[in-house]
Amino acid sequence: MLTLYSFGPAANSLKPLLALYEKGLDFTPRFVDPTRFEHHEDWFKQLNPRGQVPALDHDGHIITESTVICEYLEDAFPDCAIKLRPADPIRIAEMRVWTKWVDEYFCWCVSTIGWERMIGPMARAYSDAEFEEKMARIPIPEQQAKWRAARAGFPKATLDEEMRKIGVSVAKLEARLAESEWLAGPDYTLADICNFAIANRMQHGFAELVNTAATPHLVAWIDRINARPAAQAMFAQSKSEMPAPRPAAAA
Amino acid sequence: MLTLYSFGPAANSLKPLLALYEKGLDFTPRFVDPTRFEHHEDWFKQLNPRGQVPALDHDGHIITESTVICEYLEDAFPDCAIKLRPADPIRIAEMRVWTKWVDEYFCWCVSTIGWERMIGPMARAYSDAEFEEKMARIPIPEQQAKWRAARAGFPKATLDEEMRKIGVSVAKLEARLAESEWLAGPDYTLADICNFAIANRMQHGFAELVNTAATPHLVAWIDRINARPAAQAMFAQSKSEMPAPRPAAAA
Repeated sequence: MLTLYSFGPAANSLKPLLALYEKGLDFTPRFVDPTRFEHHEDWFKQLNPRGQVPALDHDGHIITESTVICEYLEDAFPDCAIKLRPADPIRIAEMRVWTKWVDEYFCWCVSTIGWERMIGPMARAYSDAEFEEKMARIPIPEQQAKWRAARAGFPKATLDEEMRKIGVSVAKLEARLAESEWLAGPDYTLADICNFAIANRMQHGFAELVNTAATPHLVAWIDRINARPAAQAMFAQSKSEMPAPRPAAAA
Repeated sequence: MLTLYSFGPAANSLKPLLALYEKGLDFTPRFVDPTRFEHHEDWFKQLNPRGQVPALDHDGHIITESTVICEYLEDAFPDCAIKLRPADPIRIAEMRVWTKWVDEYFCWCVSTIGWERMIGPMARAYSDAEFEEKMARIPIPEQQAKWRAARAGFPKATLDEEMRKIGVSVAKLEARLAESEWLAGPDYTLADICNFAIANRMQHGFAELVNTAATPHLVAWIDRINARPAAQAMFAQSKSEMPAPRPAAAA
């Protein structure tokens, strides 16, 4: 039995969620509510001591880290007809360079701006006492530091540097997608799913950078993934912390 | 035919180097000399546009990123008797959480202190003109920024924070190795190789943190890997930028 604990179809949580839909695997989605800090509650920290989503429970075994979970689904269900990892070792390596890049570079710059815009105001709405009570339950010191930085407002130099990195990231994706339908070559793979998890909706949140004039291939790729039956089903059926991407998904 | 471009048996270069020795695969080692900035020369940037080692040439296909290369060797040589990736998907996931952690956390804090100690003095020995000439050949802006920070000396707050993270890392490794012979469970895997790449010689460079009194299990694990025939052969036969770990390896 598979249970996926996640924040719903956005950011890192989207990765295994979309992979599960693509592969057509039966699973129980368990929405963890970030606005209630459910991922820092004791019951969840017993599953993942780091207090982070997503986490997959497979027959009582807990798998953590979004990209690791995605590869796990390939390893644990080798007979599943839908493969999200190429067969050719060279292509697998290309795929992993892309999934590694999103985890080490692309996701962080987008995340900081997202935190500045969304987590900052949320954190400032708490009294100092309420805020400290929530901080005390966060097991990762770096995560606590990020909350404090968001509450104070990230320094302008940090925001400028992260925006520069977002520009680099967008240019890199556009260049690759101008020459290849999918990131790791001719097939749709985890490289696409893991980068889509961060890039999706940038055409709204970062419209000055991601738009049909400046990045036609990136926008077409985002649209192409959103149009996939698995993505449509995921958005329609999943609870989400994020605004729904289109009216049909609000159900 | 396999050719590995590397800085020799230390840091990220050690990972695929040791994996190749462990698996007994025939390969040509190509030492890239960091003191001559060979990795920023045009011939190397034609192999890896990011100007980073290690890089593996397999019959003309270039694989980059140390951890990706290690997994590639498992994928590309499935008939090799020596497996460095477990068979059980749960164990593979555990292994990947460890290889991901070293790439995203452990290697960076150790790297900053190493740069402060070794790259800083080296960078300051150049005239401004010499230094700028070298900077102009570095393709990654973040890498240029790291060189400039090392030359200026990293801020004390940065060094303190990195030392804190090294302390967290050492404690994490010690705790895990107190309960398990190898990081990802009963078998020696890429989790061990990739963490050893960073941890090896910390008993010298960070003796106040890594020693038989404070971290007996970590030291025993480092010794256990150094004693493996593959590690001994690698150190004895490889050119290295680093001081040799023992007299026999200086040949």
